[in-house]
Amino acid sequence: MSSIKEHDKLLPREKVLRDPIHSYIYIQSQIILDLINTKEFQRLRRIRQLGTASSTFHGAEHSRFTHSVGVYEIARQICDTFARNYPTSQPNDGLWDDRERLVALCAALLHDIGHGPYSHTFEHIFQTNHEALTAQILLSPKTEVNQVLRQVSPVFPQKVASVIQKTYPNPQVVQMISSQIDADRMDYLLRDSYFTGTNYGTFDLRRILRMMRPYRNGITFHVSGMHAVEDYIISRFQMYQQVYFHPVSRSMEVILNHLLLRAKLLYQSSHWDKDRLPQMLLPFFAGKFSLLDYLKLDDNILNTYFTIWCDDPDPILSDLARRFLNRKPFKSVCYAEQTKKVLPQLKSLVHQAGFDATYYTATNNSYDLPYDAYEPGQKQQAAQIKLMRDDGSLVELSTVSKLVKAITGKFLGDERFFFPKEMLLGQGPTFQEFRSYLKNGWIKNPTK
Amino acid sequence: MSSIKEHDKLLPREKVLRDPIHSYIYIQSQIILDLINTKEFQRLRRIRQLGTASSTFHGAEHSRFTHSVGVYEIARQICDTFARNYPTSQPNDGLWDDRERLVALCAALLHDIGHGPYSHTFEHIFQTNHEALTAQILLSPKTEVNQVLRQVSPVFPQKVASVIQKTYPNPQVVQMISSQIDADRMDYLLRDSYFTGTNYGTFDLRRILRMMRPYRNGITFHVSGMHAVEDYIISRFQMYQQVYFHPVSRSMEVILNHLLLRAKLLYQSSHWDKDRLPQMLLPFFAGKFSLLDYLKLDDNILNTYFTIWCDDPDPILSDLARRFLNRKPFKSVCYAEQTKKVLPQLKSLVHQAGFDATYYTATNNSYDLPYDAYEPGQKQQAAQIKLMRDDGSLVELSTVSKLVKAITGKFLGDERFFFPKEMLLGQGPTFQEFRSYLKNGWIKNPTK
Amino acid sequence: MSSIKEHDKLLPREKVLRDPIHSYIYIQSQIILDLINTKEFQRLRRIRQLGTASSTFHGAEHSRFTHSVGVYEIARQICDTFARNYPTSQPNDGLWDDRERLVALCAALLHDIGHGPYSHTFEHIFQTNHEALTAQILLSPKTEVNQVLRQVSPVFPQKVASVIQKTYPNPQVVQMISSQIDADRMDYLLRDSYFTGTNYGTFDLRRILRMMRPYRNGITFHVSGMHAVEDYIISRFQMYQQVYFHPVSRSMEVILNHLLLRAKLLYQSSHWDKDRLPQMLLPFFAGKFSLLDYLKLDDNILNTYFTIWCDDPDPILSDLARRFLNRKPFKSVCYAEQTKKVLPQLKSLVHQAGFDATYYTATNNSYDLPYDAYEPGQKQQAAQIKLMRDDGSLVELSTVSKLVKAITGKFLGDERFFFPKEMLLGQGPTFQEFRSYLKNGWIKNPTK
Amino acid sequence: MSSIKEHDKLLPREKVLRDPIHSYIYIQSQIILDLINTKEFQRLRRIRQLGTASSTFHGAEHSRFTHSVGVYEIARQICDTFARNYPTSQPNDGLWDDRERLVALCAALLHDIGHGPYSHTFEHIFQTNHEALTAQILLSPKTEVNQVLRQVSPVFPQKVASVIQKTYPNPQVVQMISSQIDADRMDYLLRDSYFTGTNYGTFDLRRILRMMRPYRNGITFHVSGMHAVEDYIISRFQMYQQVYFHPVSRSMEVILNHLLLRAKLLYQSSHWDKDRLPQMLLPFFAGKFSLLDYLKLDDNILNTYFTIWCDDPDPILSDLARRFLNRKPFKSVCYAEQTKKVLPQLKSLVHQAGFDATYYTATNNSYDLPYDAYEPGQKQQAAQIKLMRDDGSLVELSTVSKLVKAITGKFLGDERFFFPKEMLLGQGPTFQEFRSYLKNGWIKNPTK
Repeated sequence: MSSIKEHDKLLPREKVLRDPIHSYIYIQSQIILDLINTKEFQRLRRIRQLGTASSTFHGAEHSRFTHSVGVYEIARQICDTFARNYPTSQPNDGLWDDRERLVALCAALLHDIGHGPYSHTFEHIFQTNHEALTAQILLSPKTEVNQVLRQVSPVFPQKVASVIQKTYPNPQVVQMISSQIDADRMDYLLRDSYFTGTNYGTFDLRRILRMMRPYRNGITFHVSGMHAVEDYIISRFQMYQQVYFHPVSRSMEVILNHLLLRAKLLYQSSHWDKDRLPQMLLPFFAGKFSLLDYLKLDDNILNTYFTIWCDDPDPILSDLARRFLNRKPFKSVCYAEQTKKVLPQLKSLVHQAGFDATYYTATNNSYDLPYDAYEPGQKQQAAQIKLMRDDGSLVELSTVSKLVKAITGKFLGDERFFFPKEMLLGQGPTFQEFRSYLKNGWIKNPTK
Repeated sequence: MSSIKEHDKLLPREKVLRDPIHSYIYIQSQIILDLINTKEFQRLRRIRQLGTASSTFHGAEHSRFTHSVGVYEIARQICDTFARNYPTSQPNDGLWDDRERLVALCAALLHDIGHGPYSHTFEHIFQTNHEALTAQILLSPKTEVNQVLRQVSPVFPQKVASVIQKTYPNPQVVQMISSQIDADRMDYLLRDSYFTGTNYGTFDLRRILRMMRPYRNGITFHVSGMHAVEDYIISRFQMYQQVYFHPVSRSMEVILNHLLLRAKLLYQSSHWDKDRLPQMLLPFFAGKFSLLDYLKLDDNILNTYFTIWCDDPDPILSDLARRFLNRKPFKSVCYAEQTKKVLPQLKSLVHQAGFDATYYTATNNSYDLPYDAYEPGQKQQAAQIKLMRDDGSLVELSTVSKLVKAITGKFLGDERFFFPKEMLLGQGPTFQEFRSYLKNGWIKNPTK
Repeated sequence: MSSIKEHDKLLPREKVLRDPIHSYIYIQSQIILDLINTKEFQRLRRIRQLGTASSTFHGAEHSRFTHSVGVYEIARQICDTFARNYPTSQPNDGLWDDRERLVALCAALLHDIGHGPYSHTFEHIFQTNHEALTAQILLSPKTEVNQVLRQVSPVFPQKVASVIQKTYPNPQVVQMISSQIDADRMDYLLRDSYFTGTNYGTFDLRRILRMMRPYRNGITFHVSGMHAVEDYIISRFQMYQQVYFHPVSRSMEVILNHLLLRAKLLYQSSHWDKDRLPQMLLPFFAGKFSLLDYLKLDDNILNTYFTIWCDDPDPILSDLARRFLNRKPFKSVCYAEQTKKVLPQLKSLVHQAGFDATYYTATNNSYDLPYDAYEPGQKQQAAQIKLMRDDGSLVELSTVSKLVKAITGKFLGDERFFFPKEMLLGQGPTFQEFRSYLKNGWIKNPTK
Repeated sequence: MSSIKEHDKLLPREKVLRDPIHSYIYIQSQIILDLINTKEFQRLRRIRQLGTASSTFHGAEHSRFTHSVGVYEIARQICDTFARNYPTSQPNDGLWDDRERLVALCAALLHDIGHGPYSHTFEHIFQTNHEALTAQILLSPKTEVNQVLRQVSPVFPQKVASVIQKTYPNPQVVQMISSQIDADRMDYLLRDSYFTGTNYGTFDLRRILRMMRPYRNGITFHVSGMHAVEDYIISRFQMYQQVYFHPVSRSMEVILNHLLLRAKLLYQSSHWDKDRLPQMLLPFFAGKFSLLDYLKLDDNILNTYFTIWCDDPDPILSDLARRFLNRKPFKSVCYAEQTKKVLPQLKSLVHQAGFDATYYTATNNSYDLPYDAYEPGQKQQAAQIKLMRDDGSLVELSTVSKLVKAITGKFLGDERFFFPKEMLLGQGPTFQEFRSYLKNGWIKNPTK
């Protein structure tokens, strides 16, 4: 722990924010309150947590702001539990040092501060990086966030950044914010479940919190909580299958991707007159943007350009903008290794039907998608959850849970081919041939 | 009923939208599906139901789209109940004719189609009228909505409009969409409760539906459902007190109002160069807008201008824009008839402190607010709820319910004075005098 | 506070009971755990909380055990809130002394320990008194409860008893267990709502807890929580109207009452042979029972006798027993002051139809019923809720809440006449005349 | 279908029962209403659904009555869905014939009518069989149930019985009541989850109902509902792991079993004087009981005998009765194949400590327990769930779901050894040796 005295003004009486998931968010420190009131944090109100998912689940219109305060609240509850049940009494006893609370809570609150509008697609097209931007926002002396953090101590912004970057020395603090069962994932599963109106993401938060305990190398769970942890893992799995990887949201993501790609190309080809240029996107088209340029962006700005582009003379740009705003998703089918070879022919038929295949077809994997959290292909990650027995010995979750083992280290997503809905409705040989390759939502093996 | 054969293609198999409030929205007719897919209806996804309320209750980020499909679903359930339990068997028997279903469902779905961004404030500043605009959207042959409705019959758009305008001859259909206990209010109470995370708006929808019955003059409730109706009335009252009239949301509404007012003034004084003009707002500044101009507007457009205005050279415009986007609400206190006389002095002190009182102070009543639904001052409205006894005789709710009587025909809101938070923090005699007029959240009587 | 050192072993790690209302009941002290494990407390598992209400709301089968641990849990949460936010720093500062925690928690847990089966009716017939019996159970050295309490200190049982009897000197402790908004009422409203499946009893427990604060004369609420308190009062009112005073439950209570009355009479007239005597009820028939006799009783014992009595040669006893067990409630109608005079004629007609009017008719008020908590006729009680303003001054709730005022100090129940269902079905002049007196669920005024 | 005209009086207006799980139970036919009002059905109010489970989860006090009406309600909803979406139009088209509704609903309502108190244990000790008794209750002309069913047609009781016995010719009706995903299991998972307060058993009932469809050989699910079915299977699995197989409930079951065993032995050894004989159990001790004897039994009767036996001179009977009523469960540890050999030594140590090992020790498997539904060892059962693709072809669930495959056909329960808690607390070499065999909740391998 830092020997420098850190400054944390406790509020004389705690304040609350009403929250649908946690009932209340309890604010007990002036620093946290001030961070919430910065303009960089308030900007998260204007960026939706789930991007295009509300086109599938219309309730999913919640912002990154609501998620961020939720992550803070879960981290706060973990700190309370640890401080009450597992307080450290001597150095290196593997228990919880409550002087870590403030850095943990700030990291929890600010872990998504670097996200921009439609983050996944935007990053892909414009090579921005929300993790690097998070660090910048924390460390740049120009931001209000940095000014608040520096009130604690000069090195405090860097400490908070290092927690988010997973380089902070105390593994308990790091794992509270990022690990298989961290405050971030727990909040988004509960919150996305609530707002989509699906129940797949619900799990027993209170029981998980009861079973959590600090140890030398981070955070573990008492073995009697095995089924609660299992339930969490299954819930997460189901949310990915049912919500995050939903074909319609992925289709809208495809349209968005192609729309921004087209805009970038038009910019590069000097399509627009000076007074019709999308001013706030220019630094990104040009590949040279400042932190300030980035902090001005939000969903509103992008959607406003999409509205303007609906009337653009470029037929591809305007058509894609309209499909996006008026929710006209592409259709999609699954394909397997052995039917991949049909894809060029399908693209060619889309082309024959009058659609530029670059913009009107796409393939993607369900794992190649907006949720950085969960990568089913990486065995070692799921293996990280440790259970502790009465005598203090540890055991890996997947070695004792058949359910978890079943979904560990295996690819359970799907690969899909996207194309305009018109291909399913059109008349004539091109369309008929196209449809002859499809069956039961899959590309058929043409040899059959 | 019209003798013209109306066209309603039933879907071979019903489709569903997942919804957090009703679990599923059941779509059984092609017309309804096509209406949802129009661009005018999809636009409602980009207009928040509660405007500035999410600055108080951060979960309240849901759109008018989710509410509109919810109203449709409740109307559908009412039709189902009526068709099963109270089917008409002869003209004028006061029971339900299920041929009215389609017009009722279309009116339910489209009743809010004319709303724009931040409706209440926008209408106030620009003299738009969402009810007139709703009629225009239904009746103009240029809209996709009109094109879908005309598929039913040439007069169908007008029929739907007349339901919304309350001139349709069948009072059961009219009251299903607009009355004290209609599909509209029932959905928004449940939905706003859910998304804000308060529970005040919950009531027993299923029991209300069971107790509803058609009669000659509209819709009534069996007397044994009196307590369920009472519970609904109390829930509505509590939502107004706790959510819709919340001082912080009203304060953000004040800032928004003054921000648009300032922008309008700047336009009139030719403040902006040609290339910096807020193009999409010009028709509204000029007082001459087309339906197409209106349909382009949404929350995104307005918020984008607010972002741009944060850097405007006009200090009032930029300051108000920043207060709005970064959520810096004005503070407020209540006042009573006898303390009203202090207001000029308070405004003068705000002025002395360096704030233009026109833009930095305001007064408003809680009933002078964005919810057209509920006007506590109008006794005759609450009186409209009729209960039916076993022998068919009717009784007015407020004559049998002491609770309802207690809140009928009385003004239960408050009147507030708004001012910059700086007035509570500043040092010096101006600020001290200002604060000497306040006590316990009220303006003090200066004579005491 | 007692200067005697009191003994409270804190558990090294808290234990939990899973609970549907509070998610978990947290047990942190060995004394509480030991009290739950006494046989007197376990006996509460065999006594239903709502007696005959499950004949109306079939889910309402929960026991006094679940309610008692729930009251404990709410009291525990109040202590936590008070200890964190309002800790005493000097004598008589009106704040919370956490050394009161154990006596408060024990009183919360044990407040219903003296209840027997079908308490209200049983007490009425046999002149038992659950409050006196509660004190006996706490104070008698023969009970396990007393043995556990004495471990704290010799006077501790008496201290706990005095809290329940409202003679304990600290009014904060007394009001936590019994006042208008106490742990007892808050738990039963939430719990009875949950198990009946009605929602009328739900209110915002967390917000109420946040608004509660200790003061010199007991417990008050911050004025900003006025609407939350109002919501609680309305919920309580609605539960009484909708659940606790439900005519069918009251009818089953009438049958039970008459059944026990008949059994008592048969005992007094030596109806039963020695080997068919209801052994466990004899001390109560004879009016001479010991604490041990009382503690053996539970719902099972009474219901077993009712099953045996179904085959008793006495036709009234066996018929009433069958009506009770097989759920054949009497029917009922309301009457008013001016139609009271018809009652003798109705009873006479029931008699003519072949039913002994003593056992087959009854009248009761909805307030003359099993819930000691709420007496709408007593104005001074509702007046007890005090709200505290920012400057520490107090205001009575009913002076600021129109809703609360509307239901304070007024009789809102109904008076009903009960009779066999057969009277509504039979043929012939007796039955026809009987029915001619009824209309819309009320006794008609015969002069009309 | 029978050509005999069957009689089903539809109620002019549907009646409802308030239910916490389904909100309302809708009664639309006079036959169903009359069945609910029979004394045999009302008796289910006095038999708890989960027997000893409330000793672990105190909320689980609900009766078989509430479950039975819930199963009826789900079956009713399935019939509605089938009738609306998949009505038969010609013989053998594999679609739903709504003339099957009444027999399906009666079977759903009555499927558990033959259950007695603490069914699993009681059956084991007294060789009763609730399935045979169900058939008797339906077919015996002495029961009220039979009298109601015969109103439909003389063969109707036999038809209902054959559905429950799975010999009814229409597989859709049979599978609606008993299959992997039937109305019975769906209700008990949701209901037991609700009353225990765990969430493991929740699944998306509405979505399951939407995905269900009749086909020639029974009931299948559309393939797009795969994840919803998966979620149901996982929920069921988790309820078994977490609730139904909970060690404390199993321990209470062990005590109950030994208590009844002891009573039977005492009867056989003429332990009791004539006037102290447990009259209502005698037919069962003697192995000769009538249907009437059986129908008199319920939880109340058994618990009353247990109360009486607490004072019995036989020390084993009285001690076990007290442990059962006062909730003093045995403790337990798991054992594996290789540590099984230690059991005799452990039993011997329990004996040395003064406990008769026949009554004070036991072993059991988690699958050897009160829930007939789920037998993890039987692969073919889980294989029965079929999914239907768009082209009508079928696929087995476990071949497409990795999660389901992971828990199919594998033994996932545990084997436990039960012993008195005193063994963990006692002092001296016997107790120390006993405890030396235990570690981390398991029997240790003594060679280690």
